[in-house]
Amino acid sequence: MAATDRLNQTSDILSQSMKKTDSSMSVVTAENPYKVSVVGSGNWGTTIAKVVAENTKEKPELFQERVDMWVFEEQIDGTPLAQIINTKHQNVKYLPNIDLPDNLVANPDLIATTKDADVIVFNVPHQFLGRIVAQMKGQIKPTARAVSCLKGFEVGPKGVQLLSDYVTQELGIECGALSGANLAPEVAKEHWSETTVAYHIPDDFKGDGKDIDHRVLKQLFHRPYFHVNVIDDVAGISIAGALKNVVALGCGFVTGLGWGNNAAAAIQRVGLGEIIKFGRMFFPESKVETYYQESAGVADLITTCSGGRNVRVATEMAKTGKSGEQVEKDILNGQSAQGLVTCKEVHQWLESSGNTEDFPLFEAVYQITYENVPMKELPSMIEELDIDSTSKCVLSYKMGL
Amino acid sequence: MAATDRLNQTSDILSQSMKKTDSSMSVVTAENPYKVSVVGSGNWGTTIAKVVAENTKEKPELFQERVDMWVFEEQIDGTPLAQIINTKHQNVKYLPNIDLPDNLVANPDLIATTKDADVIVFNVPHQFLGRIVAQMKGQIKPTARAVSCLKGFEVGPKGVQLLSDYVTQELGIECGALSGANLAPEVAKEHWSETTVAYHIPDDFKGDGKDIDHRVLKQLFHRPYFHVNVIDDVAGISIAGALKNVVALGCGFVTGLGWGNNAAAAIQRVGLGEIIKFGRMFFPESKVETYYQESAGVADLITTCSGGRNVRVATEMAKTGKSGEQVEKDILNGQSAQGLVTCKEVHQWLESSGNTEDFPLFEAVYQITYENVPMKELPSMIEELDIDSTSKCVLSYKMGL
Repeated sequence: MAATDRLNQTSDILSQSMKKTDSSMSVVTAENPYKVSVVGSGNWGTTIAKVVAENTKEKPELFQERVDMWVFEEQIDGTPLAQIINTKHQNVKYLPNIDLPDNLVANPDLIATTKDADVIVFNVPHQFLGRIVAQMKGQIKPTARAVSCLKGFEVGPKGVQLLSDYVTQELGIECGALSGANLAPEVAKEHWSETTVAYHIPDDFKGDGKDIDHRVLKQLFHRPYFHVNVIDDVAGISIAGALKNVVALGCGFVTGLGWGNNAAAAIQRVGLGEIIKFGRMFFPESKVETYYQESAGVADLITTCSGGRNVRVATEMAKTGKSGEQVEKDILNGQSAQGLVTCKEVHQWLESSGNTEDFPLFEAVYQITYENVPMKELPSMIEELDIDSTSKCVLSYKMGL
Repeated sequence: MAATDRLNQTSDILSQSMKKTDSSMSVVTAENPYKVSVVGSGNWGTTIAKVVAENTKEKPELFQERVDMWVFEEQIDGTPLAQIINTKHQNVKYLPNIDLPDNLVANPDLIATTKDADVIVFNVPHQFLGRIVAQMKGQIKPTARAVSCLKGFEVGPKGVQLLSDYVTQELGIECGALSGANLAPEVAKEHWSETTVAYHIPDDFKGDGKDIDHRVLKQLFHRPYFHVNVIDDVAGISIAGALKNVVALGCGFVTGLGWGNNAAAAIQRVGLGEIIKFGRMFFPESKVETYYQESAGVADLITTCSGGRNVRVATEMAKTGKSGEQVEKDILNGQSAQGLVTCKEVHQWLESSGNTEDFPLFEAVYQITYENVPMKELPSMIEELDIDSTSKCVLSYKMGL
């Protein structure tokens, strides 16, 4: 078919395409402007609080201007961190040299920070979430909604639980997620980036202007330097956010072996396929498009595989022959490479469910990290030798397509 | 739904998954083993000829051992290059220090190289293809089949033509394509990588054991260090192979501006979406999976955006404010950055077809490169401000999903 014919074929559909309208960002209002609070004030927590406070200041028809941010209280040269943030308008410990809006108020009291909030944004280290949520139980508005900026899920013997589902289970409020290719220092400096917000409209949605929906969330997080796409698929972005760290270990291995860019790209391709398959197998409601089209999917995978802790640890493992645990101690100053934990949890889950063979890359990363399988075996562990066009449907399923 | 329930749901399907069988690589035979020739002997041409000759040597039941490689004749210190290759078994000019199999025979006579071939592998610079094909017309077996390792397509006033279609049109033989995340020097050194071969079985297919099919192509190109997936979608891998260079220019711009990894990942994400949309709009027979699941799709995009000429030229444009043409002269030693040509051709085609608004990234790269639009405008040029869940289908189409 000539390209001109193809064009005619599709022009009818395209003529219906939505066009950008400058007014579209300003039509959303609320009967009672929403109160927004942020739980967490590390570098990513403070950065997201800055984004949110910039938007609430500009949109009084939709949000209360003041944003409270819970700060784990600590003393900096004898002065409480919250007090420094509220006078100097900088988080001198976790996000130095970045000016914060003066409508962002640091608060060391978790309950005071969240009790009146209509939207609670969680942005704390994974390991603190349980204790924080336990304190909040029964102390917040039952009509509140939440967004979790924590990435990923927990894998236990009973299966895979999304962190957002954990919040919903513990607090009884709907919880979405925010995830994307977002290295915090770059977002804080207002270098352009993108993110994905996922939120499922709950059955008890109270109606336009009375409750949080996708348009409200776009207004809350979108900035000229921080482009937001809002979707439904909370599971998809959570799975991608966790499993990318396992893929990053694989990238670090081939980088440390000196195999170059082709091999690193191959690991990312295979990894994306296994992420998609994992999502479809265990969260069939997640959408394939989330993984290959959203910032929280392919873009976050690319950023994470470009550098960061997991790649660094795995590269060092390849170069020195040391264990992951040892390298973590040697080079991360007490921080952890999340992929080391996730790849073990995923392996245990896949083993108990009998699915290790369907995830050869995840399994290879596990075997290399914990079972002393030589790294140079990686290609043969993920090699597909068979080709049979009569089995294409089965193969497509197997490849996660 | 609990993960265990999800698992039970899918276990029936998965139990049908194909398992790897070690014997699957050795069951393909030919009544008359196929003669394979390679046209081209640059670094990528010689590398692919090495791969192919290694396989023909190991599989006498399927291929004639000797592989002829056409070499554009030139003198190296007074000795013809072909003669050096055939005595030293190295391509000292274009792929030095890589040993070639002794069943790979360099031949400066194009017609002698290809007249008896059952499979002709094209691997020459784009600009020489027309002249070479013209010489071969009427001089080859009418039953021959071809694979083009040239990436991309040509855009003219009448539309987009795949290079493989051009070969078919000129020579009357079916032509597939090979493309992937394949920096030639790494493949030549046998560092692990992957590639995609696409081939459409023609209507005059002569039957198993008598003609080239997907299994034969896998046998011809797959090596332990060079993993091959064979698919049908010639259009998909050709489109991805051309448009990735435009995306790489965008990556170079944001890198040169110092915007960091988030921005580079965002460009790749948006670029992948526009590649998919371009494919679906102008080659509706191409498959979305090709772009996000194949080495020729997302992996080649990642590798190309990690470095290479297009990124280097665009980065330098950002840093110096010079034109693309000027930077090309300054830093590429007479080589060209293909993205500069492709982005202009694509713009002209989209303009004539009235579709520039549907490809904001491609258009932004064009405007920056040729119309003096400031690079810092890039984010606002691709910003999606509107969100309207009632228009989701239209939006999804617009996003290329």
